[in-house]
Formats: sequence, C-alpha cells, structure tokens
Amino acid sequence: MANVTKISPLAPESFPDFPRITGVEMATAATGMKYRDRDDLLCVSFPHGATVAGVFTRSRTAAAPVDLCRKHLSLSKKARALLVNAGNANAFTGKAGDRAMAMTVDSLSDKLGCARNEVYISSTGVIGEVLEADKITAHMDNLVSGLSGGGFAAAAQAILTTDTFAKGAVRRVHINGAEVTICGIAKGSGMIAPDMATMLAYVFTDAGLSQHALQSLLNEAADNSFNAITVDSDTSTSDTLMAFATGQVEITDLHDPCLAEFRVAFQDLLLDLAHQVVRDGEGASKFITITVSGAEDDRAAKVIAFSIANSPLVKTAIAGEDANWGRIVMAVGKAGEAADRDRLEITIGGQKVTEFGMAVPSYDEAACTAHLKGQDIDIIVDVGVAKGPSAGQATVWTCDLTHGYIDINADYRS
Amino acid sequence: MANVTKISPLAPESFPDFPRITGVEMATAATGMKYRDRDDLLCVSFPHGATVAGVFTRSRTAAAPVDLCRKHLSLSKKARALLVNAGNANAFTGKAGDRAMAMTVDSLSDKLGCARNEVYISSTGVIGEVLEADKITAHMDNLVSGLSGGGFAAAAQAILTTDTFAKGAVRRVHINGAEVTICGIAKGSGMIAPDMATMLAYVFTDAGLSQHALQSLLNEAADNSFNAITVDSDTSTSDTLMAFATGQVEITDLHDPCLAEFRVAFQDLLLDLAHQVVRDGEGASKFITITVSGAEDDRAAKVIAFSIANSPLVKTAIAGEDANWGRIVMAVGKAGEAADRDRLEITIGGQKVTEFGMAVPSYDEAACTAHLKGQDIDIIVDVGVAKGPSAGQATVWTCDLTHGYIDINADYRS
Repeated sequence: MANVTKISPLAPESFPDFPRITGVEMATAATGMKYRDRDDLLCVSFPHGATVAGVFTRSRTAAAPVDLCRKHLSLSKKARALLVNAGNANAFTGKAGDRAMAMTVDSLSDKLGCARNEVYISSTGVIGEVLEADKITAHMDNLVSGLSGGGFAAAAQAILTTDTFAKGAVRRVHINGAEVTICGIAKGSGMIAPDMATMLAYVFTDAGLSQHALQSLLNEAADNSFNAITVDSDTSTSDTLMAFATGQVEITDLHDPCLAEFRVAFQDLLLDLAHQVVRDGEGASKFITITVSGAEDDRAAKVIAFSIANSPLVKTAIAGEDANWGRIVMAVGKAGEAADRDRLEITIGGQKVTEFGMAVPSYDEAACTAHLKGQDIDIIVDVGVAKGPSAGQATVWTCDLTHGYIDINADYRS
Repeated sequence: MANVTKISPLAPESFPDFPRITGVEMATAATGMKYRDRDDLLCVSFPHGATVAGVFTRSRTAAAPVDLCRKHLSLSKKARALLVNAGNANAFTGKAGDRAMAMTVDSLSDKLGCARNEVYISSTGVIGEVLEADKITAHMDNLVSGLSGGGFAAAAQAILTTDTFAKGAVRRVHINGAEVTICGIAKGSGMIAPDMATMLAYVFTDAGLSQHALQSLLNEAADNSFNAITVDSDTSTSDTLMAFATGQVEITDLHDPCLAEFRVAFQDLLLDLAHQVVRDGEGASKFITITVSGAEDDRAAKVIAFSIANSPLVKTAIAGEDANWGRIVMAVGKAGEAADRDRLEITIGGQKVTEFGMAVPSYDEAACTAHLKGQDIDIIVDVGVAKGPSAGQATVWTCDLTHGYIDINADYRS
C-alpha cells in the first residue's frame, strides 16, 4: 500500500491520554489476515452490559456487519461486546460472508456467555473478499482472557486501514455534580461522505442514558459532525457510528437540564473525531471549512456547501493554492438550490472576494493566496437568497484533492 | 498552463475532412487576450439566416452569454451570427460583464447589418474576469471581411481552452433523395458533467428544419450524448449546445419519415462529439463505457450509472488498472436508487465478475486486469431490480482520474 506510513501533515500533534471507563474492557490481536506486524482485531467487552445506539451507512449495498448491527439494535437493549476487524470489509460476500460473520458472533458470545444479539460487529477494508472467520476465531480465547480496562490507544490503532494516524478524543464533564467521561475512537480516510461520513467510530461513556436518549443524542450529534464532512464524495458500505453507555443511573430525557453540559461535550467530541477523519483524508494537505449562509433553509445550505466541498475543481484549486474563486461560483451553481448570482458573496480567509455578482474591486489576490498557502482554509459563501434569523446556514468540512489521493487509490489493494 | 501541448492518448487519429455547408461562413482571429500565437475568436455568419436551437447549462450561476442566448432564442426565429471567444468565460462578472458582451453584440450586428437578437455569443475560459470587449471589437472588421465558406478546422481550434485536440464530426445523409450534411465542432475537457456535458458544441446543417423541429431534435439527441457523459462531475456555468440549420425547405415535423436517416445521423454525430469530449477529459488515460440495466426505470439506471462514473474511487482504481470491483458495488449503493445487493451482476470487459451478491467463483482476475490495461473499458452492471423490456437501462461514458487531472487543475490559471 502506498503512502500509508507517511503521516498526514494535518494530523494532530499527539493522541490524547485516555482514562479508563468503568464497565469497558478491551483487547486487540494480530490475525495476519491482511496486515503484517500490527494488530488488526479489536474486542471491546461491557461485562455489565451497555446501553447502545447506532447510526449506519445509507448505502443500498450495505455490508453484512451493518445489517447485523441494525438487527441486533432492534432485538436487544444492551450490548455485551463489540468486535472490529480491519483489512477485510466482508462486504458483498453473499451467504459465505454471512456464515463467516455468524461464526465470529457465535464464538464471541460463547466465550463471553452472552446472547448472540448482544454482540456487535464491524469489518473494514477491501470489499468482495469473504472474511476468513477462522483467522478471527483462532484468537478469541486470547482476546477474551486479555480483556482489561483502558487500551484505547491500541484499540484506535487496531481498527485503521489506509489511515495515517490513530484518531481519538476525550471529554470530561459533570452530570448532577458527578464527573463522567466520554471517549471516542474513529477510523477512516477515504470513502468518506455524508450519510455516513466515517467508516467506523465508537463512543464510550460511563454516563447512564436510556437507549432512546442515547440514540437521539447520537442522531443529533452525527448530523453536525460525521454527516457534515466529506473527503471524496464516496460512501462506504460499512460506515458505522456507535455509542455505548455503561452508567447504572439511567437518564431517559435527553432534554433533562442535568445533561446540558454532557450534550455539548458529546457533540464536541464527535466533531473532533470527524475533523480528525478529514485531517487524514487520503492525500490531504489542507483542512477546509466551508460555511454557506443566506440560503433558503438549512438543508439547502448544506447541499450547496457539499457541492463546493465535493467539487474536484474547487479541491484541486485549493491544493494548488490558487485563488480561483470562479470555481466556487460554479459549484454553487451546480448544486441546484436557489442562489442569487448577483448577490453572491464569497469570503476567503476573512477577505470578501465577491459581491454584487462580481469581484470586489479592492480584492487583494495576494492576501487570498497567502491564506491558501496555510493549512487551514476558510471559505464563507452567502448565496443571497434569504436574510436574518430565518436564513439557512450550514458548515461542512473537507480536504483538498492532491496527487496523494491518486497515489493511494490507484493501487489500494496491492 | 500545464500539459496543454501533450495530446490525450485517447484522441482520434485525425480531424475529419469538413465540406462547406451552404449558408455558413466562418472566420477566426487572435485577440491575444489570454493565449499567444493562436486564434481564440470565432465568428460564424449565416448570410441568409439559419434556424436555431439551443440547450444550455442548468447552473444557477449561468454566465451572461448563456442568458443572452436563451433570451435571443425566445425573441428571434433566425440566427445571423455566432461569436465565440476562448480564454475568458465572462462569467460572474456582473454589470461590467454584461456591458462588455453588449459591446461585442452591437459591434457584430452593426457590421453584419442584422438585428442584435440574431447574434449569439459564447465565452469560455476563466470565470470572474470581465471580458475585454475592445480586444474583440478591434478585430471585428477583419473578421467580417474574412468570412468565407469552410474553415471548420480553424474554428474547432479557435474555441479550445485546456483541450488537447480539436473536436469535430461530419455526417452525410439524404432527405427526400437530396444529400444534406451535418457538421459539428465541440470543445471541453474539464467541468464536464450531465446537464450540460460539454462546455461548447455547435452543429451546422444545410437541411431545412423549423425551429420547433430543430429544438426537439436537439433535446432528444442531447439526452443520449452530451447529457450522458461526465469527466469530473462539475458543471460549467457556460455549457452551450446549439444547432443551426440553413436549408430553405422547411420540415416542421420531426417524425416525418423523410427525416428518419437524418435523425439517426444527427444523434450519432452528437454522440461522436460527446465521446471526443470524454476522450479529452483532463488527464484521461482510459475511455470508460458504463451500462446499467435491470433498474427500476431508465432514470434510475442513469443515476446509478453516473454514481459509478463520478466515483473518485472507481475512477482511480481504473487509472491504476486495478480490478477493484468492490468500489463499483459501493458506487451502486451510494446512488440511492433501488438495487438488489444479492442479485447484482457486474461484468467487466465481457467477463461476469459477480452474481448472487458475491464474486463468481470462477472469476479470472488476470483476464479482468488485462482488460483494464487497455484503453477502452467496458463495465456492465445489472442491479437486479427489474427484468424484461420494462427494466430500466442507461449507458454513460467517462474517463479515469489520474495525476494528469491534478496537474492540470491545481494550476489552471497560471
């Protein structure tokens, strides 16, 4: 695989220190299925059970593990385990793939002495190759006997595929005076688009929430984080975002004032993880924030923002540090949502570039180019359709399109 | 500009021989506005008038010349002239751009002694820079005095921007025993997506059709040609396809049997030009034909086909000659249209790769890779939703995504 060992220039400086989370135990192993000299299998156990919620890819060709997670969520209120393997997505593998997955579920539920539908599975990697279940089940004894508190850093490493760095985030907040912790890990750097925007992300907390409250929280937080990022407009068949809450005190109302701080922190953590995914976008050299305002409604604003964020011409111009804002106009136009060409205002790096349907006469291209030479690019587009508090607004995040993307993807499987 | 002089490996062997078309005169000139040592301005005159029809970009931020063509089509039944400049799209240039365009229209209609609304304008190139009208009007006397029959090859050259070869096609057919000719020229290699798929294309014929018949013919032919190709999913603000018919005998019914041969040839010529545009896709090294069958209806089939054709992961896999058909499954899944994962059949280069939701056991990857090493790639996907004559089907054409695309677009303006 090309370029995997070269860490993204946009990577955070360090992986955060993770505390232990009561009721969460982990272990990792190396199956040798695809990768050499690294762990590629993660087992998470919730010995006392965990409330569980999930958001999954909207792909019409979703992988078998995604179907299984959806089914188990509908059948069982508690999770006892999560098993993730990297290197083979077990997607589009028909009945043989289903059987391989069933073998791993059986094996893990046997070892843990729990119901099959309390086990959740994710697989990430190449599509179309049947999972070699025996290479996973052969490690089950060691995995289960090795379960222990902590281990988030190893877990975040074990689930990576083309990623160049491990992704994690931690928040500590209070609920009714008691400190609770939220920890998240994620992987994904290609095939990243809205609905869902990451391949895999897992959030763990020792707070206690009902399944309904946890699912509602996850839905609202996903919309403004993982569903607001894009790398290449492609959508994985395996995208999975899950949350596990191990606390014993159960809060059932998401709008309970005692949860206010927790909700903000939960949203913030998901956004942090989503940004890390973009920062590891295949070949990325720039982290781009695109805000669209003045739209018909928030939905229209998001459609336009993604049209800009997914435009190969916009992404290559930014890669080339070229202030070619005409391509932003093009991308607004092709979105198909209402936009007033003659009121369109584009602001790049804080400098207003266009107004009244043309370039601002005093526009300083040199300053704009200087901004584009940085790593963090800010683009604001007011499409001029609505004003005031009812105007639609959305922010999405993406990266540029570089030779690195071609390098990685023209030869991913070799 | 990078790579402009290197001709696409997918270019046709030669530019066709164009005959003269009665009632069509041309001249070209070099304004020096952007390019050095080449003509960049085309004037076409129809001394006796021509029936005219047009199909334009659906961009919400369409360029001023597109608005003008739409307006003139609604105001006037005849065209007397077409003026095209390359290097500056005069798009998103506000009132100053409108004034510049009006100056060129005034100048040309004055010289030709025709109405302003009998003049059609196209501009292609960089967005956001006001057209320097004086650099065009300064050449108007020479252009008009230089008008003569023929000159299609020079015309096809004069309208190019990042194209690496001139695009043209000729067909000769009979209407009621009399030979008529259809000639077309086109330009465009980036910002190519459905609705409209080329930046600029013009078709000329000495057949005689009513405006209504010509417009209907153009609409039907565009759907299966220019609106069935994509290079990078981006849509130009200037996309324009126009047809001009100079014949004196006027056929008003498109379904008149005498037009049967002409209709087929017209459609065929548009498809030829559209394929040439794909073959000049920025950085293209493979010409890819994608057929989707077994869909809910033709519309759904086209949506799925474009989802595959626009997927950066599919396009980079093909660039890398990697038989990573899992990415085709992914692209089918993200299209959002009905697809039966467990009946999906993918055929690459004539070899069936998947059936019953998984790889065909006897699938020969080496043969598939050998096909991908060629220049013409054939992908057929049956999505398994419908069977028989009512099943939806569509074919679209695209190219691969290579380093060349990044080279060209990360530094287009310099």
